[in-house]
Amino acid sequence: MIEWFDDVRVGMRFTTAEKLVTREDIKRFATEFDPQPYHLDEAAAEQSMLKGLAASGWHTAAMSMRLAVDAHPFGPHPLLGLGVDELRCLAPVRPGDLIRLEGEVTEVTPSKTRPQGTVKVKWTAYNQDGMAVYTFTPIGIVPRRAKVV
Amino acid sequence: MIEWFDDVRVGMRFTTAEKLVTREDIKRFATEFDPQPYHLDEAAAEQSMLKGLAASGWHTAAMSMRLAVDAHPFGPHPLLGLGVDELRCLAPVRPGDLIRLEGEVTEVTPSKTRPQGTVKVKWTAYNQDGMAVYTFTPIGIVPRRAKVV
Repeated sequence: MIEWFDDVRVGMRFTTAEKLVTREDIKRFATEFDPQPYHLDEAAAEQSMLKGLAASGWHTAAMSMRLAVDAHPFGPHPLLGLGVDELRCLAPVRPGDLIRLEGEVTEVTPSKTRPQGTVKVKWTAYNQDGMAVYTFTPIGIVPRRAKVV
Repeated sequence: MIEWFDDVRVGMRFTTAEKLVTREDIKRFATEFDPQPYHLDEAAAEQSMLKGLAASGWHTAAMSMRLAVDAHPFGPHPLLGLGVDELRCLAPVRPGDLIRLEGEVTEVTPSKTRPQGTVKVKWTAYNQDGMAVYTFTPIGIVPRRAKVV
């Protein structure tokens, strides 16, 4: 099990639970944070490039964060990020979709000045058909194991 | 006013309204999407790297999207993004903070095959003290003006 930065290796993989995306959740999130026709109005969404109601990309991002948090990739340590690289919306997330994430460690960099390191995990969200719908690569901070002196 | 891709130029700037960040909103968002001590529990947050309760970065991202949407940078066209580059959390967003965004067009690329183009806008969120707290660069799709033939 990964507990500290020292335990993390490039190529390690994580999986998460699944999350059902509901029509109500899509509209509730969009009403507060992304009130655009694609995410609020079935008829307008049909006429748009998305060809039907779809979750805001930021909603998919937030749901994916929850799945990643609950997977506890770094054991007891919470997820704290400096930022995110390569956030991409790959396909629409629809009402009734069941999304899950797979993650892979792509980079580990020990800090030269602090007892910690940064870890990049490339996460990809898939729907129930196995189609990749979203990907993001957060840059996380993970503490190092205390040295015994 | 910008109405079509053809009207957008590198260096154009946008500003948004302000958004008050409340303690209740921070905890409500975190409970649903990012249930970690930094965002839910004042005492635990004090002991953490963030040194006090702070909004989830995804919450700041979602609030910033709302500010950007309401600013209508591309006139009548909704914001539709392929993804986001360079998402970075620069400083904690605290209860009571008032955030606003400034945006600058950094790249415009006409599509070779479709009547549209991609526009990158580097948005930076500032708090009431003028401190940059968050930045992101969405890659938006904007339609071209129809040609008169």
